[in-house]
Amino acid sequence: MSKPTLAVVGATGAVGTVMLDILSGRPDVWGEIRLIASPRSAGKVLRVRGEDVVVRALSPEAFDGVDVAMFDVPDEVSAEWAPVAAARGAVAVDNSGAFRMDPQVPLVVPECNAEAVRERPKNIIANPNCTTLSMMAVLGTLHRRYGLRELVAASYQAVSGAGAAGAERLYDEVAALAGDRTVGTVAGDVRKAVPDLADSPFPAPIAFNVVPWAGSLKEDGWASEELKVRNESRKILGIADLKVSATCVRVPVVTTHSVAVHATFAEPVTVAEARDVLSAAPTVVVLDDPAAGVYPTPADVVGTDPTYVGRIRQALDFPNTLEMFVCGDNLRKGAALNTAEIAELVAAELAG
Amino acid sequence: MSKPTLAVVGATGAVGTVMLDILSGRPDVWGEIRLIASPRSAGKVLRVRGEDVVVRALSPEAFDGVDVAMFDVPDEVSAEWAPVAAARGAVAVDNSGAFRMDPQVPLVVPECNAEAVRERPKNIIANPNCTTLSMMAVLGTLHRRYGLRELVAASYQAVSGAGAAGAERLYDEVAALAGDRTVGTVAGDVRKAVPDLADSPFPAPIAFNVVPWAGSLKEDGWASEELKVRNESRKILGIADLKVSATCVRVPVVTTHSVAVHATFAEPVTVAEARDVLSAAPTVVVLDDPAAGVYPTPADVVGTDPTYVGRIRQALDFPNTLEMFVCGDNLRKGAALNTAEIAELVAAELAG
Repeated sequence: MSKPTLAVVGATGAVGTVMLDILSGRPDVWGEIRLIASPRSAGKVLRVRGEDVVVRALSPEAFDGVDVAMFDVPDEVSAEWAPVAAARGAVAVDNSGAFRMDPQVPLVVPECNAEAVRERPKNIIANPNCTTLSMMAVLGTLHRRYGLRELVAASYQAVSGAGAAGAERLYDEVAALAGDRTVGTVAGDVRKAVPDLADSPFPAPIAFNVVPWAGSLKEDGWASEELKVRNESRKILGIADLKVSATCVRVPVVTTHSVAVHATFAEPVTVAEARDVLSAAPTVVVLDDPAAGVYPTPADVVGTDPTYVGRIRQALDFPNTLEMFVCGDNLRKGAALNTAEIAELVAAELAG
Repeated sequence: MSKPTLAVVGATGAVGTVMLDILSGRPDVWGEIRLIASPRSAGKVLRVRGEDVVVRALSPEAFDGVDVAMFDVPDEVSAEWAPVAAARGAVAVDNSGAFRMDPQVPLVVPECNAEAVRERPKNIIANPNCTTLSMMAVLGTLHRRYGLRELVAASYQAVSGAGAAGAERLYDEVAALAGDRTVGTVAGDVRKAVPDLADSPFPAPIAFNVVPWAGSLKEDGWASEELKVRNESRKILGIADLKVSATCVRVPVVTTHSVAVHATFAEPVTVAEARDVLSAAPTVVVLDDPAAGVYPTPADVVGTDPTYVGRIRQALDFPNTLEMFVCGDNLRKGAALNTAEIAELVAAELAG
């Protein structure tokens, strides 16, 4: 039996670029890997698995013969094109927000609900938001053992979560400010010294600053990213009444989201036990020895696949509650890697 | 009656420098302002209230005739010298951690417990830790109205919280990394490119990174800064059984601490009411209109006196609970300004 054909839609974007790198290092389950992007990028030559591949323009015919189509494109592009791919017989694995909360579309993190890929009446499977994904391997592992009940999360989100333009913006602002050894000491001095904010994907300066905003405005002052953490965590973990409150904050880190997690469980849990349970999870790395200066930081984990957890403490005043600091590469496990893992689950199913 | 004499001990440090600026702009309550520092800095000439003042070396005699002595020095220096100043008849206002949890030393934030300055059996008054202080004007205001019961906090702490060396370190690392438009994309690349970490006040790179550590290691994996938030909040607010859990994280911001606050109250509270109550507080500024891109960020509030609060939301799954993002200049209200305010309360008392 021939290997299935994979299409990567959005191959030239921030996540698409990481996807080609990831596909080049994953198990050899795919026959053809077809690269698809906007007509503007068609004709470009990109390397995947050591071979040059010419990018095709997005069109209905581009999906002919495709078994699995990954979408790393904006919501509105996915909303239009994932159903087109599905109608042409492909299983669409979508990394946008277009289908995540659709009850007929599974939202999958293999460590948490791999079995959900098989129930896909629309032949579309959704990949979670990167901030939610950064926590799921850790929370899913602990949930199976202790029963997650409450989650209070504060994020430290990397600029590449806003796409390639986010990283470029941070580099631009740092270049404009470097060498000034007084910057950041007077209100507004950073704002005056950085390039025009109208050109930024962020609503405030991001160099020498943190910005308590990610996504679009939803009702009652919530940012869309904060509601995604709540709604997607509930769906992935299968806990309809999970109590969640998140604050999402952008920080001047290029890639790798961090989250300060306050998690309350149904069962008693000790730090030593939690460390053992997390250490046994294949995709989780416990970095937790503060006496030796060991805890996860974005600069040390970026570009790698696992989810890292450290600073595990028992909350002193909250029963059955752990404090943790979790880091995950938002372009890899937070996006491309998880999408690749979902696609591989489908490939295995197709291989029967 | 002549105005009281003020001594500033640690006048040449990061907080001391801001203190001289603050004293130059505060109400004219002081007679002599005497500047004191380590023998190494003695003889330096600093400007305060538009006048040149020669720095004196720290000695018992330096406190002769002093009515109020502020200490902006390390814990061990305060532990030794604040009692010396008190024995010579001065009221010591100490910004170190040496006396904060001493039951015979009041820990004061004027917005919360101004009256506590009068009960000072050791003639020492303590100024809180900068991270705790960043939240107190907001939490104290809400506590009086709604009764604070629980606090879950995640901090975004500026490098100058680690003193002048912290800011210098961030500038050094940014200078070393600026212009490299790939930095922060491979694990360890930031670590390799920055100056020797042995020379840093931080345990990991701080440019293009966040570091989940502040202070020294205490039992069960807690950082001292996290326990200070718990213990000092309880003492300042007078809530012995306040439930607190904090995670402290250093971010590449020069000055101004931010905190993502999840606060649960005894009484029901709406966002509209909370905004009204906070807007009426003289030292709090509400910046909370996300539709217009209005929320506090360190770059916009550094160098100013108020505590800023925005992103006020009602937690969707937690009764009587608000989410907020709070910013305060860690060198001003977080340190020097609050110390100056305490000293002025004492000056008013001495004036009878």
